[in-house]
Amino acid sequence: MKNYKMIISYDGTKYNGWQRQGNTQNTIQEKFENVISKMCGEKVEIHASGRTDRGVHADGQTANFKCNTDLNCKEIKDYLNHYLPEDILVKSVEEAQLRFHSRLNAVSKTYEYKIATEKPDVFIRKYVFVTDRKFDIEAMQKGADKLLGTHDFKGFSSLGKTKKSTVRTINFISITEENGIISVKINGSGFLYNMVRIIVGTLLDIGEGKLPLSAIDEIFEEKLREKAGATLPACGLKLVEVFY
Amino acid sequence: MKNYKMIISYDGTKYNGWQRQGNTQNTIQEKFENVISKMCGEKVEIHASGRTDRGVHADGQTANFKCNTDLNCKEIKDYLNHYLPEDILVKSVEEAQLRFHSRLNAVSKTYEYKIATEKPDVFIRKYVFVTDRKFDIEAMQKGADKLLGTHDFKGFSSLGKTKKSTVRTINFISITEENGIISVKINGSGFLYNMVRIIVGTLLDIGEGKLPLSAIDEIFEEKLREKAGATLPACGLKLVEVFY
Repeated sequence: MKNYKMIISYDGTKYNGWQRQGNTQNTIQEKFENVISKMCGEKVEIHASGRTDRGVHADGQTANFKCNTDLNCKEIKDYLNHYLPEDILVKSVEEAQLRFHSRLNAVSKTYEYKIATEKPDVFIRKYVFVTDRKFDIEAMQKGADKLLGTHDFKGFSSLGKTKKSTVRTINFISITEENGIISVKINGSGFLYNMVRIIVGTLLDIGEGKLPLSAIDEIFEEKLREKAGATLPACGLKLVEVFY
Repeated sequence: MKNYKMIISYDGTKYNGWQRQGNTQNTIQEKFENVISKMCGEKVEIHASGRTDRGVHADGQTANFKCNTDLNCKEIKDYLNHYLPEDILVKSVEEAQLRFHSRLNAVSKTYEYKIATEKPDVFIRKYVFVTDRKFDIEAMQKGADKLLGTHDFKGFSSLGKTKKSTVRTINFISITEENGIISVKINGSGFLYNMVRIIVGTLLDIGEGKLPLSAIDEIFEEKLREKAGATLPACGLKLVEVFY
């Protein structure tokens, strides 16, 4: 029995997110498990660093699975890329220690959210959120700086009631603008449901002058989802890298 | 009456090429003419540097049209981008001299053809031709060098019988390979029907060792389409720049 660690990329446009759950059809996990199980001749489960939601993309998702196979890592990669659909790509396969687990061992993850403030380059149009609102990047970065560190992010999530901890740590948020595309990169210990999309939605409201900077303190204090900005569309979000 | 010159970009995937002709529906020209005619309040014809075929992309197509409008260039650009579909983008609009004509005044054009020799990055997968054949880039470049200059390219085209000249001049062909993507950039005075796709198809056959270098001399001499390589799929082709 060996444990294989993969870096994978996918265009999430037509999938119901990463995770196979209940009757949810057409998940990326399901696509992988079908092909890997066929390759190994037995039912194999695959673990990713975390689920990505319906329509969210990934360029550096990490996942692992255990199985017995005579194929080497290069052959596994080629096999999977041959049988997986064209919108899913295995970028690398390597053998990991048996106790390695993509989700449990993840130290931090970087997401990127892209906003086009004018009609975007046709070749990337499916990977950005398009809006004709105007934003002050400096104000957005000031808001971002207030989010850094360890906080209870409950107000920045779409979670219902939960007994689990909603405390997370954000390590950096960098905001850049180039050729009409605003890129917000966020690295953190972990993210609650819809947390990145709500954080960026809130930063956009601050950048537009619709919310004051102090809104962030209020959301931390009152933990009320409705005080934060909109949950932005999935198409602009991409899981960029997972650190171990 | 003013003459407007535009640089435009489009994802050709779902269009029947640039040119509106006869009963052909869903052309890029038609999309432009509908929106521009609405903007100007009269039927306006638009001229591109040349037609691109069904499924071919453009990043730097040039087109011009004449009309009377009170809008300035920035307003024209914004109007068109607002009403054109998301897979067509106007990158710039400027006023040109009245006698400027996108096709008649074009001095040369650069096309790029992209070939993925392994499963490509999911985010560019619709803009490359994917094959698992293996190619010797140096041999391809030697073949390319034999194509430079002024020749009768009839054998490298899908034209039927024609009385028009099939002599064209190729100024440069540069072939590079990076991350499993071979890029062939061709600049020439003009191109016959399917000429770029057949030239690249022939260079791939040479790079694979399926055709000898001398095949190019033979095709020039005998002018027989069947001696040249396959017409590669449209998805890998992009009109990159038009020079005036």
